[in-house]
Amino acid sequence: MKGAAKMTFSQINSIFEENDCFTILTHKSPDGDTLGCGFALCEFLRNMGKKANVLNSEGFPDRYDFIYEGYYEQDFEEKYVIAVDIADTVLLGHNLERYAKEGAIDLCIDHHISNKNYAKNTYVDAKAPAAALILYKIMRESGKPITKHIAEALYTGIATDTGCFKYENTTPETHRIAAELMEEYDISFAVINRKMFDVKSKARMRVEQGVARHMEYYYDDKCSLIVLSKEAMEESGVDASEFEGLASIPLSVEGVQIGITVKERHENVYKISVRTTEEVDASAFCKNFGGGGHIRAAGCEIHAPLAEVRSMLLMQVDKELNGTKQD
Amino acid sequence: MKGAAKMTFSQINSIFEENDCFTILTHKSPDGDTLGCGFALCEFLRNMGKKANVLNSEGFPDRYDFIYEGYYEQDFEEKYVIAVDIADTVLLGHNLERYAKEGAIDLCIDHHISNKNYAKNTYVDAKAPAAALILYKIMRESGKPITKHIAEALYTGIATDTGCFKYENTTPETHRIAAELMEEYDISFAVINRKMFDVKSKARMRVEQGVARHMEYYYDDKCSLIVLSKEAMEESGVDASEFEGLASIPLSVEGVQIGITVKERHENVYKISVRTTEEVDASAFCKNFGGGGHIRAAGCEIHAPLAEVRSMLLMQVDKELNGTKQD
Repeated sequence: MKGAAKMTFSQINSIFEENDCFTILTHKSPDGDTLGCGFALCEFLRNMGKKANVLNSEGFPDRYDFIYEGYYEQDFEEKYVIAVDIADTVLLGHNLERYAKEGAIDLCIDHHISNKNYAKNTYVDAKAPAAALILYKIMRESGKPITKHIAEALYTGIATDTGCFKYENTTPETHRIAAELMEEYDISFAVINRKMFDVKSKARMRVEQGVARHMEYYYDDKCSLIVLSKEAMEESGVDASEFEGLASIPLSVEGVQIGITVKERHENVYKISVRTTEEVDASAFCKNFGGGGHIRAAGCEIHAPLAEVRSMLLMQVDKELNGTKQD
Repeated sequence: MKGAAKMTFSQINSIFEENDCFTILTHKSPDGDTLGCGFALCEFLRNMGKKANVLNSEGFPDRYDFIYEGYYEQDFEEKYVIAVDIADTVLLGHNLERYAKEGAIDLCIDHHISNKNYAKNTYVDAKAPAAALILYKIMRESGKPITKHIAEALYTGIATDTGCFKYENTTPETHRIAAELMEEYDISFAVINRKMFDVKSKARMRVEQGVARHMEYYYDDKCSLIVLSKEAMEESGVDASEFEGLASIPLSVEGVQIGITVKERHENVYKISVRTTEEVDASAFCKNFGGGGHIRAAGCEIHAPLAEVRSMLLMQVDKELNGTKQD
């Protein structure tokens, strides 16, 4: 609730009980967490006898096909709108802009500290590494059945947002909930993890090689930067969702503290992904360009020609690495 | 104990109590598990007022420097020998061959189903994803203090042997113990994981590109194979321990069920690493060539010219993929 006390899980479960005809919104450039939450919640509500649909501005990438529910509810007059893992209505994307207007979204369940509090009711836990972890706790508290498929969708959200329990955002509770999901619901976690983390198409592998060959290094190799032109991405034949993981490559070189990926969206529109080690705050870095995100992984969009984008970014990197801190 | 009932943790703790001047043996081509166990146990014993040293045939790779204990005990007459994470005395390596003789090793703590039962006392739990997990449970049962450094060494063993909780060998207990290590000992798990899983030297990155470019595909791309010549590995300037992770690359291509890495050791001596998806038993595959290991990750050594090695391997792959099973 806007400005009010934090919602309880049982309040959220009452909302599920008392409403029907749910539309569940997921964010643009969808990832495992927003999709995992979306389809887990959709199935959970349907199993309660409710009608529900999941929407995404760009459709649903093949990469996550194992978490999708089988049908789209046609006979449906939308009555309640829930946003999952969406910090800001700008992340709804072009085709869901109608939900960006004041009062359009009834409930938001999220884990971004930067959440804009745009919904009528909001539950944010910024310490949760994934929105899927919050959603699991809500479902668990309800006492209602969680199916294997729901558990797999939630595990996918948790695993993808923590780099498979690798990143700093992983908490002891994250591990305990993973243990619970494995034990209670017999999830095929290894198959999911292989799909999410280990398998690449031949095309993606070729793209990675190209990326690694064209990596730029700055400031004693503490900063690395790659640029992906629209043309190169299209030519590669790699699905857009497969490009998401590329953002971690610049940071994977020894000694690099800030890794930047610059993806061309349109002419003079670049999407920037920033990944950092503990020395640099990625979220603060991106705020300088009107973006945000998490402390080690954040993003922003810059509207300018490439040369200018690069120099804006590098000036900010210089400030971060050499400006405020004294070695 | 040979052929006797399974040892209990308290029996093992009594052994630690009642003996002194321990030599702890780790396996050749050391990984995070054998080294994590070795140095965790060494520190644990020293904190009990005992003398202890860790030995490895080839020395200790820089990659794991954060888990090494600071000194080598000179004033020392070896009285008790413990092997950690060593399935077979052939894995001791050239410089530790003296321990391969009957009766030389007093205690073995291991998690390989293929353990050869070579020690006077053996504790094997083949369901444990890492020997470090067993060792943690032994230490926990003792009630003696576990330091942050010990906890970090054990976490490293668990994380590296499970691919950071990614692989099928991960159990609910594995997650719960990770949670415990994080909560009780404040381990720097994200720093460790970045070092173990995300960071590569520029040289390693170059090698990976080369590997990906020269990947061979067989049997409708269900099998992929890479060959690393001794010359190429030496020229790359990449530390031998950094080559270990390369074995997972062939399996990382979509649709591949068996990924094989062939590394040249000497002329006509090749070390083979096999990684498989659920369709193929890697351990059984390697047994055909006198090797062994785990169900999804195994290895063997073949003494023959390269062309012959390749054809021996591919004939066996053909049997696996097309022979016994009918589609």
